[in-house]
Amino acid sequence: MGPIRGYVFDAYGTLFDVHSVIEAGRELTSDPATLSATWRQKQLEYTWLRALMGRYEDFWAVTESALRYAVRRLDLSPTETQLRRLMEAYLSLACFPEVRAALERLEGRPRAILSNGSPRMLEAAVASSGLGPYLRHVLSVDAVKTYKPSPLVYALGPRALGVPAGDLLFVSSNAWDVVGAKAFGYQVAWCNRAGAPEEELGIRADAVVSRLDQLPG
Amino acid sequence: MGPIRGYVFDAYGTLFDVHSVIEAGRELTSDPATLSATWRQKQLEYTWLRALMGRYEDFWAVTESALRYAVRRLDLSPTETQLRRLMEAYLSLACFPEVRAALERLEGRPRAILSNGSPRMLEAAVASSGLGPYLRHVLSVDAVKTYKPSPLVYALGPRALGVPAGDLLFVSSNAWDVVGAKAFGYQVAWCNRAGAPEEELGIRADAVVSRLDQLPG
Repeated sequence: MGPIRGYVFDAYGTLFDVHSVIEAGRELTSDPATLSATWRQKQLEYTWLRALMGRYEDFWAVTESALRYAVRRLDLSPTETQLRRLMEAYLSLACFPEVRAALERLEGRPRAILSNGSPRMLEAAVASSGLGPYLRHVLSVDAVKTYKPSPLVYALGPRALGVPAGDLLFVSSNAWDVVGAKAFGYQVAWCNRAGAPEEELGIRADAVVSRLDQLPG
Repeated sequence: MGPIRGYVFDAYGTLFDVHSVIEAGRELTSDPATLSATWRQKQLEYTWLRALMGRYEDFWAVTESALRYAVRRLDLSPTETQLRRLMEAYLSLACFPEVRAALERLEGRPRAILSNGSPRMLEAAVASSGLGPYLRHVLSVDAVKTYKPSPLVYALGPRALGVPAGDLLFVSSNAWDVVGAKAFGYQVAWCNRAGAPEEELGIRADAVVSRLDQLPG
């Protein structure tokens, strides 16, 4: 890898632990993990489909649509209040335990978030996790009205930081996001927290870590 | 619905029964349905991701990559010969039992396939299923090097048939494909063979049938 002049982080699953979203599903089903996985998969699918159709809606709307699909698919019958509670879990996320120290260690170089999340969702998560002081920019796809892995999204990082993509390290826990960023031109690290298999998209990460405090400094 | 001056069909799962692909998985695993579902899901994901990244590879290559991911994910250890056999099942598909009669009934108006499949894959499936005589065009996304639900793909139908999208009926067993076609401007029918839940993408099919012989004539 070359020199690193700044860091661009994915948000959900990378910095922010979405486990509390699973917890919020417990009052609805005895299998909140399946609800969460179905919801998450559909959430991603809807971002890809809407981006390809050129029919952008923001991530809050997409996330709610995916939730409605997931409960119908799993034959659950939540009240509107229960749905609301699940959605609101996204607004009060914690970060993973090592994140604050990991970001501190990278001090001196600009650090940013680049996420599918809507500005309001990201603002709330940054506030609730206390990561604000460590981040120069919180960048949302909403600025370009499409979704990852569109190159239009990845271009927001270098533009905001004033550093070419090749001098930035893009970090995500999503293997496909890492592929998209690398295809765009970033150096990339895959934070493979879950021990997931690599994608077969013909592009490999420059580094693979299992926690953010293992990132190249 | 308005008058229908031609029909555009999705291929896999709509005209062609991919059950034989599942059968081919039996020598590899005691749970070929899970292999098939994992493979299919990843196959679609890779079409969406590659289309969004602007990194088109044809459907044969995407299908093979998705298969390699699926066997790794499921901890299977196939030989290259076994992988080859699974892939080749795509070249000798049967059509669903009612398809031939359904296409015959629509005679007098042009009927076409519009599919993610590569030209070679579609040619082989049309030949093995005996549907050639009923089809005026077999259209592949390969002509525009991207994938459904990109509007560039759906535009191939009206262009080839010389009929505006609004006067054509697009038919697919994939709910998201129906949404993409409707967003483009077709009249659409969802052939919901499996009783799947509707997508939450803000667009509904004009007609829902469970077999192709129930299509509006």
